[in-house]
Amino acid sequence: MSVVEILCIGNELLSGITLNTNAHWIGKKITKLGAKVRRVIVVADDLEEIDIALKDSLERKPDWIVTCGGLGPTYDDMTMQAIAQSLERKLVLDPIALQMVKDSYKRLGQNVRLNAARLKMAMIPHDSIPIRNPTGNAPAVHIYTKKTQIVCLPGVPSEMKAIFTHSILGDIKQEIGQFTVEEHYYHVEGVSEATLARTLTKLVKSFPRHALYLKTHPQGYKNNNIPVMKVQIVSKGKKGAYVQEILEKVSNVILSEVKKYGGKIRLE
Amino acid sequence: MSVVEILCIGNELLSGITLNTNAHWIGKKITKLGAKVRRVIVVADDLEEIDIALKDSLERKPDWIVTCGGLGPTYDDMTMQAIAQSLERKLVLDPIALQMVKDSYKRLGQNVRLNAARLKMAMIPHDSIPIRNPTGNAPAVHIYTKKTQIVCLPGVPSEMKAIFTHSILGDIKQEIGQFTVEEHYYHVEGVSEATLARTLTKLVKSFPRHALYLKTHPQGYKNNNIPVMKVQIVSKGKKGAYVQEILEKVSNVILSEVKKYGGKIRLE
Repeated sequence: MSVVEILCIGNELLSGITLNTNAHWIGKKITKLGAKVRRVIVVADDLEEIDIALKDSLERKPDWIVTCGGLGPTYDDMTMQAIAQSLERKLVLDPIALQMVKDSYKRLGQNVRLNAARLKMAMIPHDSIPIRNPTGNAPAVHIYTKKTQIVCLPGVPSEMKAIFTHSILGDIKQEIGQFTVEEHYYHVEGVSEATLARTLTKLVKSFPRHALYLKTHPQGYKNNNIPVMKVQIVSKGKKGAYVQEILEKVSNVILSEVKKYGGKIRLE
Repeated sequence: MSVVEILCIGNELLSGITLNTNAHWIGKKITKLGAKVRRVIVVADDLEEIDIALKDSLERKPDWIVTCGGLGPTYDDMTMQAIAQSLERKLVLDPIALQMVKDSYKRLGQNVRLNAARLKMAMIPHDSIPIRNPTGNAPAVHIYTKKTQIVCLPGVPSEMKAIFTHSILGDIKQEIGQFTVEEHYYHVEGVSEATLARTLTKLVKSFPRHALYLKTHPQGYKNNNIPVMKVQIVSKGKKGAYVQEILEKVSNVILSEVKKYGGKIRLE
């Protein structure tokens, strides 16, 4: 199974100014493809912090690292510099990245001077591939290392999404190949997660590892004492029919358990 | 400056099912107190993953680690077990935690049997302090280690917030002592962040480290080509008057710079 780590860079994510919707969005896309997001790390706009986090991540040998943020023109945008440092590569002014930056200003009808801050957006680690940013100025970057591919995306959500959708998704999909993910959500009332706990444990143990993901999401209490929860069943694998079979089997067990304990259950 | 790391535990946070509002909420509270959130880590409901992430975090020697999630009764709630493993402490059935679990069901008017799943919520690492959960079943836990205090909160946001507000905030505040944080947000149109970049760099360098945080948040373009951004100025420190002085000085520089380049600026 392809393993992905997401590294988000930005003080505003740590101090509670910006909600990290990027990690959520990327996590959903990658999970749908059939890969596994193993970890999300958020660090500050700090050269050493980014460098350490990236090195640690590379040591865990994921197939992909997706970074988000820190590609812009200001003093605190230092993702490229940090990655160059981690990989012990030089930071170079890439001619194609430079053309992308120039084009981005032209596209916006802005006749600006390419000052040092703007040139910085075209400085990328040696031997990396710049990726066109269709809605902003800073190009994204794709870097191949021995074991891990690193993709660096901007932090502005609209730019990040456009680049991921147009230029990254296809690459990840191609690597993963055929993969089926099926999911059921049940709304359950009157039975608590503690009551179902043993059944869930048994079910998970009875199927191959990674084939079944089973989770209760408690939603609090109705009328102060009726437990409400969602039960999530995710079945996944390379064989569609088997995936479907697991989903049905597990659904049936849960339906009958909830009824046995006098609860209500409905598919969402 | 007090340093905090936040460790969130839950597959649903990695797979894009649940948006990580907990890290955002905790980050905001801690920053307001005057401490620094250095890192947010999100890992799966997996014993080894939690154990490794916690050990790594402890090695970085923060003053506090706040964990979120994995305290419930189901098979995939394994935060306590993982932390016990990381700290090489035994997992023990704590009599006070047990009473808290019993009381929680009584409070909800539920006459339930304390099966193994429910008892699990009272199993905490040796030599830790259980904290009452006023709205849910699983107690939170406060653990003192040599350098770092670990606080383990449930993942359900309403429970997490209630416990943090009632039982944790005061402890952190007491440790940090008197601290002032002042913030200005400016809405800027017609000047890009690249144009302001040099001025910002200069400003940041001209004040003591940690006293000033200055950040541009690009918001895209108005009428397709007029850059829009927010400029955030945060001034902080132990002396209120000095904090205020920095805020005013920096605001004035930015106001005059934006006007110099023909942009519009207003306080938000």
